[in-house]
Amino acid sequence: MEETFVPLRGIKNDLHGRLMCYKQDWTGGFKAGFRILAPTTYIFFASAIPVISFGEQLERDTDGVLTAVQTLASTALCGIIHSIAGGQPLLILGVAEPTVIMYTFMFNFAKDRPDLGSKLFLAWTGWVCVWTAILLFLLAILGACSIINRFTRIAGELFGLLIAMLFMQEAIKGLVNEFRIPERESPKLIEFQPSWRFANGMFALVLSFGLLLTALKSRKARSWRYGSGGLRGFIADYGVPLMVLVWTAVSYIPYKSIPNGIPRRLFSPNPWSPGAYENWTVIKDMLNVPVLYIIGAFIPATMIAVLYYFDHSVASQLAQQKEFNLRKPPSFHYDLLLLGFMVILCGLVGIPPSNGVIPQSPMHTKCLATLKHQLLHNRLVATARKCMRKNASLGEVYGSMQEAYQQMQTPLTYQEPSARQGLNELKNSTIQMASSTGCIDAPVDESMFDVEKEIDDLIPVEVKEQRLSNLLQAIMVGGCVAAMPFLKKIPTSVLWGYFAFMATESLPGNQFWERILLLFTAPSRRYKVLEEHHATFVETVPFKAIAMFTLFQTAYLLLCFGVTWVPIAGVLFPLMIMLLVPVRQYILPKFFKAAHLQDLDAADYEEAPALSFNLATQEREMGRTASFARDGEILDGIITRSRGEIRRTCSLKVTSCTATSSKEFRSLRSFQNPRPSEKVYSPRISELRGDQSPRLDGRGPFSPRTGEPRQSNLGKSG
Amino acid sequence: MEETFVPLRGIKNDLHGRLMCYKQDWTGGFKAGFRILAPTTYIFFASAIPVISFGEQLERDTDGVLTAVQTLASTALCGIIHSIAGGQPLLILGVAEPTVIMYTFMFNFAKDRPDLGSKLFLAWTGWVCVWTAILLFLLAILGACSIINRFTRIAGELFGLLIAMLFMQEAIKGLVNEFRIPERESPKLIEFQPSWRFANGMFALVLSFGLLLTALKSRKARSWRYGSGGLRGFIADYGVPLMVLVWTAVSYIPYKSIPNGIPRRLFSPNPWSPGAYENWTVIKDMLNVPVLYIIGAFIPATMIAVLYYFDHSVASQLAQQKEFNLRKPPSFHYDLLLLGFMVILCGLVGIPPSNGVIPQSPMHTKCLATLKHQLLHNRLVATARKCMRKNASLGEVYGSMQEAYQQMQTPLTYQEPSARQGLNELKNSTIQMASSTGCIDAPVDESMFDVEKEIDDLIPVEVKEQRLSNLLQAIMVGGCVAAMPFLKKIPTSVLWGYFAFMATESLPGNQFWERILLLFTAPSRRYKVLEEHHATFVETVPFKAIAMFTLFQTAYLLLCFGVTWVPIAGVLFPLMIMLLVPVRQYILPKFFKAAHLQDLDAADYEEAPALSFNLATQEREMGRTASFARDGEILDGIITRSRGEIRRTCSLKVTSCTATSSKEFRSLRSFQNPRPSEKVYSPRISELRGDQSPRLDGRGPFSPRTGEPRQSNLGKSG
Repeated sequence: MEETFVPLRGIKNDLHGRLMCYKQDWTGGFKAGFRILAPTTYIFFASAIPVISFGEQLERDTDGVLTAVQTLASTALCGIIHSIAGGQPLLILGVAEPTVIMYTFMFNFAKDRPDLGSKLFLAWTGWVCVWTAILLFLLAILGACSIINRFTRIAGELFGLLIAMLFMQEAIKGLVNEFRIPERESPKLIEFQPSWRFANGMFALVLSFGLLLTALKSRKARSWRYGSGGLRGFIADYGVPLMVLVWTAVSYIPYKSIPNGIPRRLFSPNPWSPGAYENWTVIKDMLNVPVLYIIGAFIPATMIAVLYYFDHSVASQLAQQKEFNLRKPPSFHYDLLLLGFMVILCGLVGIPPSNGVIPQSPMHTKCLATLKHQLLHNRLVATARKCMRKNASLGEVYGSMQEAYQQMQTPLTYQEPSARQGLNELKNSTIQMASSTGCIDAPVDESMFDVEKEIDDLIPVEVKEQRLSNLLQAIMVGGCVAAMPFLKKIPTSVLWGYFAFMATESLPGNQFWERILLLFTAPSRRYKVLEEHHATFVETVPFKAIAMFTLFQTAYLLLCFGVTWVPIAGVLFPLMIMLLVPVRQYILPKFFKAAHLQDLDAADYEEAPALSFNLATQEREMGRTASFARDGEILDGIITRSRGEIRRTCSLKVTSCTATSSKEFRSLRSFQNPRPSEKVYSPRISELRGDQSPRLDGRGPFSPRTGEPRQSNLGKSG
Repeated sequence: MEETFVPLRGIKNDLHGRLMCYKQDWTGGFKAGFRILAPTTYIFFASAIPVISFGEQLERDTDGVLTAVQTLASTALCGIIHSIAGGQPLLILGVAEPTVIMYTFMFNFAKDRPDLGSKLFLAWTGWVCVWTAILLFLLAILGACSIINRFTRIAGELFGLLIAMLFMQEAIKGLVNEFRIPERESPKLIEFQPSWRFANGMFALVLSFGLLLTALKSRKARSWRYGSGGLRGFIADYGVPLMVLVWTAVSYIPYKSIPNGIPRRLFSPNPWSPGAYENWTVIKDMLNVPVLYIIGAFIPATMIAVLYYFDHSVASQLAQQKEFNLRKPPSFHYDLLLLGFMVILCGLVGIPPSNGVIPQSPMHTKCLATLKHQLLHNRLVATARKCMRKNASLGEVYGSMQEAYQQMQTPLTYQEPSARQGLNELKNSTIQMASSTGCIDAPVDESMFDVEKEIDDLIPVEVKEQRLSNLLQAIMVGGCVAAMPFLKKIPTSVLWGYFAFMATESLPGNQFWERILLLFTAPSRRYKVLEEHHATFVETVPFKAIAMFTLFQTAYLLLCFGVTWVPIAGVLFPLMIMLLVPVRQYILPKFFKAAHLQDLDAADYEEAPALSFNLATQEREMGRTASFARDGEILDGIITRSRGEIRRTCSLKVTSCTATSSKEFRSLRSFQNPRPSEKVYSPRISELRGDQSPRLDGRGPFSPRTGEPRQSNLGKSG
């Protein structure tokens, strides 16, 4: 995305790009069939549970003017609008904690003014929303989102980790409060006697840790050894909601021997109780607000606008990280414009507005990547099996899988030629490989070709980009309003466990988090980082630089976390993260080498044009990395970073001793070791291997890969 | 061990064998230095905690005649005697659950007789002990232990699993009781109000699961990625006692807001409280027991004798499993004789006798194997580093490591020649390998040769066989009597967690357990079993036969478990397991093929003489397994079972296509896949690889191994 501040150009570009794939956004969703329900349910829970909990918080802080009914309604309404009319359908909208804090602040301000009071509070927030929307329109039209690509990895990942910390803080605070008497409640109730309070706290510990541990386990079900594949898949897809159910059921086991109020459960009025509808007619009161307050509403509006501008864009950016290999274009400007309209809408019906949320948005993309993986997997396995039943040779099997894969690609008009080419290259190289072994014409059977496994290794990360899952989850959130009597059966302690789960789930894949862990990793085990993640930087950047960079980032993170504790102004913590942009651009380069910064935190604006991979380039690259190779072994880590491709490949150039020398194997391992099972054992074998695309699970050594056409050239020259 | 029923011959042989290594049993222990404290502490806790808990149970059941003081005293006394004068110093002695049940039964019998009563109870049990001892002497002298080798894997592992189930049952029962009012206590106490009882139960859940999960995690610390090697080693060695401390400390956190009795803690009189010494003078009363009861004491004595004969021998056998590669001889007959003396001694001083315990005895051996591994590791790493500093070549490094390894071998006069030969073979093959690559003369440095890792892979399973750890842990158990005021601070819920931990820790390595898990493993993931364990049977026995065998064994296990619930007679559950001997010998062969039985449950008495590994044998072996290989790939799993060696090797013989055919790699993986990172990539590379000895951790791909001289021959012919 180039930086353009020409008015409206950004919006026009966004609309142009997204309209081209709008139809496919829907057909693709429906083609996935009932499987779309897995990511839908997962994101529905991730979206609804915090919103319910924030609603409860809001009810406490606004004396019941706003409740979970309103937060759920806002989330559902904005979610439905965004999933249908929005630009980037991967983005999940919801009422977030900063909104709750801002509304609490505004309520406290309004309730003490005699000419405003809690009666005109919602009307006044309506004006705040109008001002906010106007500011958002201005930002969208003037192309303010163009600078989103100045938010590099360092800012995005810091923000992600900060949100994880806030969620974890919420979980811990919630758990601690289970041992205390809630503010609103009468301390004379039986369940607030010291003994029952202690019992409630202990029960809450059991329930929340039970949920956290089982939910984390269930997400990994796909790699369990036990149970049939279908069962494992079901648990991995629906395990988390299932565990919420299970632990809610567990909370009812001792109901006979404990008072009614233990464990504490969600508190929210039913939407059909009197007064729950008051907010909907707020528009009538808006003109009753004194003019001075209408103008004064501009002050909180600026804060909310800045907050939303940042939150919405970064949530969208994190949902579209490079690792996901997205094929469809982003839509920052247009989405901000649409957000403005939604803010007005919410203001006029008297509900707090929603914006793009973290970690739900990246979680959504991750789920859809898993879904796409399964769909590709099933299709390719079926194709390969069908072929093998016809006594096809290995070459034919690969050929037909190749065809099936092409058919499943999103039919976009602007598809990058490199991706297509990559797949052809894969086909050629596998056939070539098969023919070189002389086995190409022999029929293969399943004993020789472990279809399930091979294909898992073969599939690159791709995301099922569509609108259906977002729309369905938003509708389900809306359904929660009606299902309130059932939701009220969930113990609050299960919610705290769920908050902790969300915080934990958002950590893997965050390079900043991986680097923090690396600091605590014993030097002799640092190579293990490479087994699990694509972390080129471990090879190319000296450990000292990694450590310095990570310590700086951690200090900054703690500073931001401290800012969130500042009363009122704390909600503007995103400004702290915006400040990282000039820091990254002007200050960090003074302390770190450009090449290291590039590896730790690739900034698009600093990036060199994609390398053309002829032999000359390759040799230059090798020269650059030769300093890491000792005693004749040269190892290069060539990094590509253009969109839709993945950094990190490795190849081997042997310059001394014999080609299959065992000494080299050993030294190779100690240097390179991308994954113990993925070593390049001989130059010949490296021909079989394409790019090492990151996969969803860490399984499956030693198989041809798709995605990186250049790598096969490299292999051949080795 | 041949079956000899010539009187005294077994004892003589045992004494002869053990006396030869008696001195080394002590010097070896002292040579290990302070590191011996790690297994000592670990086994001390595993030994003391159940004994304390059984003592508490006994106190409740004998109206305080016997307490934890007596069970601890018996365990310490017998432990000290056995570690000094016993035959097999790996065997751990302790007061076990069956003893407690027998004593409870005898107390209930005695207290209702007017001429016996609870006053003469201990004197009467003295007579029971005398009779038991006489029976044990007879069994020892007549060589009854000779039939111990008829207890094959099926019996030993079933017994191990049964004990694990009983421990787990104890943990669950204990936890459930935390929610109830203890029998002895007054229900009017504040801590037995419903609210505090519920709070106590929930607190107990937190403490016991906390202990279980953290203790299990800490045992795996050595393979953690984080922290320095020293810290990780410390946590792995002392993590479990540390966790008992940590969770005891946690139990004191809310002490201000809860009554004194929550959580419940160990209950036991201090040894200096009045009455705790009464039992020591029981010998005075023995002649006051009416003659009829003296004679009648023979009846419980037979039951106890049968129980001890079985328990003691099987505990000893499980501590000496083949996988441990023990070098020193067993001592079943002599140990049984010594047990007889200890039973008399305990009877005369009025304490319940101890016998060999499961799972502590095999846990002891496992710990000592870890210790030996560390000692070998440190020595070899130091040697290799020293060598490399002198710019030695790879061949020289291996040579010097070889020497160091030889020096660390237990200097036994009767050492098996095969073991020595194996080490020489290793030396030759590694040097040969180095020379074939042409790198033998080049100096190596650490970048090429990852010393820590290589050496870990190189070290076979060996056990530090000595008497010191057993003696020290027995003395520490004795020290517990004095430390009773501190022990009483441990919450009972931590004990239940510890019981569950012991049950869980005893499962890995139990082939029966692995097979049960295999039944639940998805067919496509069965190969994963081979990644973690040495389980030749998965390759050589059809799944249906494995399933049938395992189902039969499981049904039998459940039957035995059911028997333990039968009042009184339940303690004779070991008889059920003895019944397995004829079942295994006469009934099972009718349902299973001999070869399959042999693989699933190698019986020494059925075993063929060790194969002499010339080419002819090898080809015969290959022919035998060829039925499992399809399409030209032949794979053999040659199994050796003589003592001191490990079953399970694999080699590759290519009979079709070209040698480096990728098709073969793939098919090899689907068949063989001993570990994904340990594939044989080319026949040439297989030369580098010796036997795949089982290692303590699952790490380290692709390196030369020690231990199996024959394998290198095999590899060369491939």
